[in-house]
Amino acid sequence: MEQRLSLVTLGVSDVARARSFYEQLGWRGYEVEQTVFFQAGGIAVVLWGRDKLAADAGIDDRGVDGFGGIALAHNVRSREEVDAVLGAAADAGAGITQPARETFYGGYAGCFTDPDGHVWEIAFNPGFPLGPDGAITLPAPA
Amino acid sequence: MEQRLSLVTLGVSDVARARSFYEQLGWRGYEVEQTVFFQAGGIAVVLWGRDKLAADAGIDDRGVDGFGGIALAHNVRSREEVDAVLGAAADAGAGITQPARETFYGGYAGCFTDPDGHVWEIAFNPGFPLGPDGAITLPAPA
Repeated sequence: MEQRLSLVTLGVSDVARARSFYEQLGWRGYEVEQTVFFQAGGIAVVLWGRDKLAADAGIDDRGVDGFGGIALAHNVRSREEVDAVLGAAADAGAGITQPARETFYGGYAGCFTDPDGHVWEIAFNPGFPLGPDGAITLPAPA
Repeated sequence: MEQRLSLVTLGVSDVARARSFYEQLGWRGYEVEQTVFFQAGGIAVVLWGRDKLAADAGIDDRGVDGFGGIALAHNVRSREEVDAVLGAAADAGAGITQPARETFYGGYAGCFTDPDGHVWEIAFNPGFPLGPDGAITLPAPA
């Protein structure tokens, strides 16, 4: 198995509502058969009905919305950008679960949940530089 | 908010067990302070204690393992590779929740769950070509 990821699919209860949320944050997607696709660097972020996603994966979904043990992170280039993205998310209706603060690794980060409870961390991490295209490169292990 | 993702953090109950699972699939990560990092194309996949992840995000985790409404997909270049990766995952202890099968979009895919219940779909999708580095490029909308 090559060491990479192709798509992250977020199961949602209302595809139009979820699309509107991400589009208010400035993302632009397109819809095919009640599924919304966003190109996100070398991967895709996808919005799909949670029931369909669970059925497709052969999963018995206990239907618990909220934290599912996964957090998505969006790293930015400055502390100011963390504040700006969290502000935009709040304006779009996100729940701010962790206001931006200094982190133990010398960065600055905060978290929000999207309308379906999916967790995003917005982080400035000076140890994980971003390329011109936003790609992240992990530092060599110490 | 730029249209990209930086990290996907999988909350796990046993970091060493989770690392061993992904390393059996051929991934190579490194650990810093009980956190394992895998470079995965232009993003990073991270393993971290689920309790720490929830606390860091300010989330009240109801502690439900299993499907959390997100599925990760790993697209490959052939049907044979789908079978090979699912076989390797099963050998590493994954639960095969959806045996590989032809899909409605003309591809071939199956799903497994990792030791913490995180869902992976392994897919061959001829409509979503992979670059030499494995990056996915969505087709232009019709």
